[in-house]
Order: sequence, then C-alpha cells, then structure tokens
Amino acid sequence: MQLADLFTPQARELAAPIWAAPPQAGAIPLISLAYGLADPVMLPQEELVEAAAQITANDVNEVLNYAPDARRLKTLIAERLCQEGVAANERQILVAYGSSQILGLLPHVLINPGDTVLVEAPTFMGAVRMFGRAGARLVGVPVDAEGLDVAALDAILHDLRAAGVRPRFLYSIPTFQNPSGATLSLARRQRVVALAAAYGVLVVEDDAYVDLRFRGEPLPPMAAMDTDGWVLRVGTFSKILAPGLRVGWAHGPKALIDRLFMFKPEGTSGPFVTHLVAQYCADGRLEAHIAALRFHYAAKCALMANALRRELPEATFVMPDGGFFIWLRLPEGVKSSALYPVAIEHGIEFLPGNRCFSDGRGDEHIRLAFSETPAAQIEEAVRRLGQAVAASR
Amino acid sequence: MQLADLFTPQARELAAPIWAAPPQAGAIPLISLAYGLADPVMLPQEELVEAAAQITANDVNEVLNYAPDARRLKTLIAERLCQEGVAANERQILVAYGSSQILGLLPHVLINPGDTVLVEAPTFMGAVRMFGRAGARLVGVPVDAEGLDVAALDAILHDLRAAGVRPRFLYSIPTFQNPSGATLSLARRQRVVALAAAYGVLVVEDDAYVDLRFRGEPLPPMAAMDTDGWVLRVGTFSKILAPGLRVGWAHGPKALIDRLFMFKPEGTSGPFVTHLVAQYCADGRLEAHIAALRFHYAAKCALMANALRRELPEATFVMPDGGFFIWLRLPEGVKSSALYPVAIEHGIEFLPGNRCFSDGRGDEHIRLAFSETPAAQIEEAVRRLGQAVAASR
Repeated sequence: MQLADLFTPQARELAAPIWAAPPQAGAIPLISLAYGLADPVMLPQEELVEAAAQITANDVNEVLNYAPDARRLKTLIAERLCQEGVAANERQILVAYGSSQILGLLPHVLINPGDTVLVEAPTFMGAVRMFGRAGARLVGVPVDAEGLDVAALDAILHDLRAAGVRPRFLYSIPTFQNPSGATLSLARRQRVVALAAAYGVLVVEDDAYVDLRFRGEPLPPMAAMDTDGWVLRVGTFSKILAPGLRVGWAHGPKALIDRLFMFKPEGTSGPFVTHLVAQYCADGRLEAHIAALRFHYAAKCALMANALRRELPEATFVMPDGGFFIWLRLPEGVKSSALYPVAIEHGIEFLPGNRCFSDGRGDEHIRLAFSETPAAQIEEAVRRLGQAVAASR
Repeated sequence: MQLADLFTPQARELAAPIWAAPPQAGAIPLISLAYGLADPVMLPQEELVEAAAQITANDVNEVLNYAPDARRLKTLIAERLCQEGVAANERQILVAYGSSQILGLLPHVLINPGDTVLVEAPTFMGAVRMFGRAGARLVGVPVDAEGLDVAALDAILHDLRAAGVRPRFLYSIPTFQNPSGATLSLARRQRVVALAAAYGVLVVEDDAYVDLRFRGEPLPPMAAMDTDGWVLRVGTFSKILAPGLRVGWAHGPKALIDRLFMFKPEGTSGPFVTHLVAQYCADGRLEAHIAALRFHYAAKCALMANALRRELPEATFVMPDGGFFIWLRLPEGVKSSALYPVAIEHGIEFLPGNRCFSDGRGDEHIRLAFSETPAAQIEEAVRRLGQAVAASR
C-alpha cells in the first residue's frame, strides 16, 4: 500500500510551482529587470516597526491573540473604493494573503474543468496559470495601446455564445497593464462592463498598479460603472506598501465574496498583519507615501525610457502612464527567446515576452521592470541590453 | 442571467463559517472559559516589536519585498523536530498561515466526497468541520484517560477493511488532547503507528499543545516512530508565541508536503511574518519563553482544578499534564446544553461537550479553558459555574 493511493484525483499529478524562484546569476553579477519587485529604498521599514509598536501597545489581545481581521482595514479599503466612485460596502470586502490568494481562490468558486476563461493577451501569467491548473480553457483577447480590444472581446463573446459557451470570467488588468503598460480608456471600460452584463460574464478587475499613476487623471474603475454586480475588484498593498506583508483584498458581489471566503482554508487573515497595515495607513500616511512612490517610479520610468531610446533606437514601446513595466518591442528579427541567454551572458535579465501569453506568442517582446533596480543601475542595465541585442543579431 | 449561474457545484450552497465569532456577553459581564486563547499577559509584544526592528534593519529587501519564506524558520522547525526524535528535513516542511491552513488544505489532497476519515471522539471540531465540508464520512474513535482507544481503532479499521473501505487519514491530537486533556501513552502511540502502516492510513498528528507540558517527561511524537512515511506532523506557533501572527507548519512525506503546497492558494507564507517568528525564536528565546509559559499555565490549571474540586465536588475530570483545557464531566443528570443558557445568565461561558463530537454526543461534558482568563478571575468563574449548576438542577 502506498501513500499515493490516498491522493485525490486532482492531487495525483504534482504540478510545477506557479511562483518560481528567480534564476541564479551567471558569470557577471546580474542586473535583473525581470520581476516587478518594489524598490527597497521605498519600503517604509521604520514606520512599519513604529506601527507594530503602536498596535501591540494599544491592545495586545486584539492584535496578537486569536482575533478577527482588523475591522479598520476594511473601513480603509472601503473608503478608498468610495473615493474611486465604487459603491463600496465593508461586508463585500475579503482581505486575503496578497491578491494572489484571491486569484488562487477564484477557481474553487468559478471554474469547473473545461470552463472557458477570458484573459488579456499578453497578461500576468502567474494568475493565469492558477486558472489553467484548475482546468480552465483560456481564450486570449488582444490588447493594444488603449488596453483590451473591446471589439475583439465582443466578437469572441458572440462566437462563444453561438457555440453555446458562457465564459466564467474575464481577467483584466485595466490600469498600467502587466506587461503592456497600457491603460484601458474610459469608453472601453464602459463597453467592457456593458458586455459583461449583456453576456453574463464576471469581470475580475485586477488593479494592482492603479495608485502608481505618473501623469494624467485617474480613470474610474470598472467596478464604479457596474450597477448589476458583474465586477470583482481586486487590489493589493504590495505595490503601495510592502509585498512581503502579503495583504490584498477583493470587493464585489456579496454572494461571490462569501464564497471566496468559504474556500479560504485558514479563515480570516489574522489580526496582526491586518492591524499593522491599517495602522501604517492611518492619518493620511498611505496617501503621502503613494505620492512619494508616484514621483519616485515616474523618474525611474523616464530614466529607463530615455536609456532605451538611446541604446536601442530600433526598439519601440508605448510610454506607460504608471506602473512598474516597459513592454519593449524588439528590433525587427530579434527574438526574445534567442536573446535571453545572450543577455544573461551580458549580465542582464528580462522577462521574455512569451512568458506573458498562454499560447507561446510574444517572442518579439520583452518586459522590463524599472521598479526594483536602483536608478544608478538602470542606465547600465539598458546599456548591457543594447550590447546583448547587438551581439544576438 | 445570474452571477450564481457561474458558481461551481461545490460553491452553490453557502456553507456556514467554520470559525465563528464568540457570542456577545449577557447582562452580567461574561467570563468566558469557552475558547483556547492565549493569556494576553504572556504575549511577548515588546520582544516581537524588537524582532521586527531587527529583521527590517538587517535586510529590508529580504523581509518586506517579494521573497520566499524565511529559510531559517524551516531550519528552526527542523531542529526542534530532531530534538523530538523525528528524522526531519527542511524540504519536508510546509510553513502555513496557522495550522488551521494545513488542516484546511488536507481535503484537497486527501478527501473525495464520501471518503472515510477517522477522528477522535471527542475532538477539535473546527478541524473536523473542514473535513466534513469536503464530503468526508467521519468515523469517531473513542478516547479515554490514556488517549485514543487503540483497540477500538484496530476494530474499526478491521471492520472498514472488511467492508472494502480504506480511510484516508486519522486526525489525532495525541498530547493534552483538545478537549479531553488526555495524553496518548507511549505504547498506544507505537500501536497507532503500526496500525497506520498495516492498514495504509495516514496519521495527521496535530500536536498544537505538546510544548506546554506541566509535569512528567515528554513522549516522542508518532512522527518519531514512523519509518514508512505514514505520519504528517502538524504544529503551530499559536500556543507558544502568538496566535495573531498566524504561523503553523507541517512535516511529513515529501509527496504529501509538495501537494499541500500545490493547493496553498497564495504560494508561500511570505517573508515578513516568517522572518519575524524566526528572529523572535533565535538564541534560545523561544525555549526560555516556553519554560515561562509552562510554569504560568500549570499554575492556572492548578488554580482551576482546585476551584472545581471545591465548587463542584460532584463533577469529575482527569487532571491534564499540559495544554489549555479541563474536560469536566458534569454531575449526574446535568446536561451541558441545558446548563449553557443558565450559565450565560450567571455570567459564565464554557464550550458545551456536544460541540466536540460530530454526532451530538458529549452532553454530559463541558470544556473549560484556563488559558486566557486572568488568574484572579478563574476562581470567580468557577464559583459562577457552581452556582449555574446548582440553579439548573
């Protein structure tokens, strides 16, 4: 008798981890532009320690004993949603261990094997792999400089309906999209929400980067346009506070929020980390910190963009209005998969474009993160990238 | 078209939350002995804040950015396991958001609807409800003063095999069992492990209270007797450090650990909280703190036991050698379900015994936690309990 005999069918095959560790450096110390990490100089370490001291001194039992999530964190999230025009309600908020936990719970509530899920092409494959593992059939919807192509979305929904298929949800990153940097225009947002209601498809609006706007006016989220409960808005404190705390959230129809919670294996997210985040954010500190982050990342984005124009004049990109990434179209004839090993030899790493599509496309693109790398290294990084491109031709 | 149309079959029915909030107090300010919370005076708030300052000052990127679990926490857990005689390996450890997350993940790997799971009777129903929700058929194995009745276990396994049923696992709390306080004897531990191997049944050994021993010598865990990979040992920092941090772990066969991780929706448990716990525990501080906790809880246990002998001489209990609870057999004719509302009126709350069985038995018992209530209130609490018992007869 084997232990493996006891495994459920879905646990028989060991799946590869969705979140892989970054690769090791080559001979030259590597500068990696591959991952959307926070800039460590902007992690508010002292203020977080101070917040930890305050919350434990205030009421140790509420913070360190068995206790529910901090109510005031839900209040804060609801207030920020209201400012975006969302009719937010604390009872419709689920606080989770990072937005990735929300995305990991979605399949339990929404995906039967064989169900169709719509994703942007390109998109954040970490999320998409979680849907694919649950047996979803993934259908890509193209993205252009204005974000998701809504005419294509309409056509796909129409064709699927004709074939008797009702997709479970559309996974969309509308603002400073990962990886393309594109922001869905107001008109398109309205169209997506209208299509969602018309076809009875949920929109999972992952707005991880929305607060990191460098220029222009904020656009209302799709959740603010949704009157019939077809949008689940997903957010995170990872990009605006600290990824290592693992705090994200979702707001949406109560029936859906309640069911996501039902499958959250540990119950609530615990009092310590939720009080810590709420305490840090209090008294306007979060908004002041976001203002500093916007300024900081805007400067790094501009630095990278200028270096790219100088070192790789044949490569093209749409300048993002916010976020962590530049999505670079390589010079004609250069393929990211062939470029990658050459780049590693030159001491520079990026995310190959085909890592952002579920069907292997994207080889003419690479994703460059300007978020973590020190400003002083960004120019050197792009210089190395230029040398790698030259060497690969 | 309704959103609810999109829900998976397992999400159609909204299940009641497994972790319910404690009830509100009645007219008299309630003293609750119902829940196994930590004593707030023993929560090391200042040392935790100091540890937070140390880890963020050491390497902010490792602690607050996207990063894996603290490796040194797995090292610490492995070292403590080795001291208990377990052939521990860091690669066979999963760190999770409380041991409840481990228990919540088990069904994904081990339970198909209709599968049989063995549980102690009585047991910790929070865990058992998670198995039941996954569709497990629960079979109770009796517990006496020496813990799980191994003769009964053998008979049940024999009968199930005769009926063609192979249980998926046995959920056991061998040390200072919740709620009975009983500790499984050495001979019985050996017998359980032998039966597990003989019948091909996993043992989920939840040893949440093992470090809180008031007297006597520690017994080796069943994981230390297991040579063939039939024991998953589950542990937690909730009872020995702070429940609010939500850090637990499991050690066991690598194939099982890998699959539990596969269903952990958010991936790792994040760097901040895992470094925080590891930093707190370093340099012998955890062991010193545990020594203080043992002394502290032993005194509270003795205080409650003496008060019970005085105020409720007709009630009986086995004095526990550790843990958080006294499992009280009520005087003849007194039923916990009838006593409960009377007790609330008298300003005292307990856990009715039938909350510890999956089949409604247990009405002659109540579980009393001495862990959280201040020592100064324990005598008053037991006095109220005595009055409630007198009033209910």
